[in-house]
Amino acid sequence: MEKLYEGKAKIVYRTEDPDKYLIYFKDEATAFDATKRSHVEGKGIINNTISSILFQLLWEKGIKNHYIQKVSDREMLVWRAERFDVEVVVRNVAAGSITKRLGIPEGTVFPSPVVEFFYKNDQLRDPLICEDHILLLNLLPKEDIGKVKEMALEVNRVLSLFFEEHGIRLVDFKLEFGRLPDGSVGVIDEISPDTCRLWDMRTGEKLDKDRFRFDLGDLIEGYRRVLEKLHRG
Amino acid sequence: MEKLYEGKAKIVYRTEDPDKYLIYFKDEATAFDATKRSHVEGKGIINNTISSILFQLLWEKGIKNHYIQKVSDREMLVWRAERFDVEVVVRNVAAGSITKRLGIPEGTVFPSPVVEFFYKNDQLRDPLICEDHILLLNLLPKEDIGKVKEMALEVNRVLSLFFEEHGIRLVDFKLEFGRLPDGSVGVIDEISPDTCRLWDMRTGEKLDKDRFRFDLGDLIEGYRRVLEKLHRG
Ligand SMILES: Nc1ncnc2c1ncn2[C@@H]1O[C@H](COP(=O)(O)OP(=O)(O)O)[C@@H](O)[C@H]1O
Ligand SMILES: Nc1ncnc2c1ncn2[C@@H]1O[C@H](COP(=O)(O)OP(=O)(O)O)[C@@H](O)[C@H]1O
Ligand SMILES: [Mg+2]
Ligand SMILES: [Mg+2]
Repeated sequence: MEKLYEGKAKIVYRTEDPDKYLIYFKDEATAFDATKRSHVEGKGIINNTISSILFQLLWEKGIKNHYIQKVSDREMLVWRAERFDVEVVVRNVAAGSITKRLGIPEGTVFPSPVVEFFYKNDQLRDPLICEDHILLLNLLPKEDIGKVKEMALEVNRVLSLFFEEHGIRLVDFKLEFGRLPDGSVGVIDEISPDTCRLWDMRTGEKLDKDRFRFDLGDLIEGYRRVLEKLHRG
Repeated sequence: MEKLYEGKAKIVYRTEDPDKYLIYFKDEATAFDATKRSHVEGKGIINNTISSILFQLLWEKGIKNHYIQKVSDREMLVWRAERFDVEVVVRNVAAGSITKRLGIPEGTVFPSPVVEFFYKNDQLRDPLICEDHILLLNLLPKEDIGKVKEMALEVNRVLSLFFEEHGIRLVDFKLEFGRLPDGSVGVIDEISPDTCRLWDMRTGEKLDKDRFRFDLGDLIEGYRRVLEKLHRG
């Protein structure tokens, strides 16, 4: 298969069907604009599994996304997308960049979810952008900005409830979006402990990539606990 | 008179009328979150004069603002406002923070003006904020965000034309807004070469605070040239 793109966490391959890509989940962990890096044995397998569960859930709830099927431990078949170069972050609880940026203590529960757009651009270190920047940079057609924001909030409602049912608080998460072959806007990329902040609702323990960012404990151990909780129900 | 607040560039006094304040323009210049400072003899006088001209122009064009009258060289009588803690920046041409943030070369003319909101908070170093942050921090009632943006764009149309008629390109500028005693939203603070980027349309020379920020030449010389051009017509 022709390798189309190798990123920090995944590799994207073309398939025989021009409308479908194969995503391979690697074991690399990176943080702080990839200045911190590590090999984490088994991470790709868990992220593929969790992403597959969550994308299927989105389909069940009627939210368009690129997921077709999980084809192996580390491989997911997806619909090809024209990616929008934005990262959409939804926050339910203050953590990470927003705490420093706006001086809000970690753990502060927001009265309603906060949606942020970032310019997906490694060189510029993914800066925060607002509506006028999105239009200026032509990252999204104007009529799709509201659509993408609404979809992100809908994903948040679905995922928050689902994680809560499994004892996990969805603190915040990052989504990517693109235009699918049928012309509709869909969620793409991955939804995993690499891209979500997930706190154990009983103990408060962080089960996500912050373990790696801030050396809070074995990364894979946290990711495994997320998967266990999702399976246990 | 009771001193109400002393800021980096101005002092605000109460007057006998509880609905009116007196603003005194100082000669301090500061930049880069006030890490760079200097005394610039006569700056306060010029900024008061230019601000007065521009606020009067806004009134002529029907744009509400706090200006009542210029009462002396350095003093302006204004309507008291409940300040919104946002700085609203309108950009016609790329310069300053946006060039680094989004990798856009200085001088790039935007197809339409770009409006940005910043959280007016010295401690946090005035971070860029988007709509959801404004609501989260309660900086503006939701119904006023669009209103303020529209007013900022209207101010831009009026000032761009006015400066252009006097041979000056209005590259970008910062506005502050507040609620005036009659309950309406108005432009407050100052509009001067401290808060605008102004380029000589013939020579391209920078006539604004960037002279101070980047040691491009005598500050007061640039400010004086702006005032001369406005007077000359
Ligand atoms: N369905 C899709 N179609 C096209 N590109 C996709 C799709 N899903 C994810 N991508 C892109 O594939 C890449 C996945 O690799 P990743 O390691 O996450 O890259 P990066 O380091 O750029 O984040 C990302 O650039 C992501 O935006
Ligand atoms: N009409 C007004 N009513 C109340 N406050 C005002 C009004 N106009 C300006 N201000 C505020 O007065 C202060 C002016 O002083 P300045 O030196 O610019 O302060 P700063 O260093 O906080 O920017 C600012 O905080 C500004 O927001
Ligand atoms: Mg990625
Ligand atoms: Mg000021």
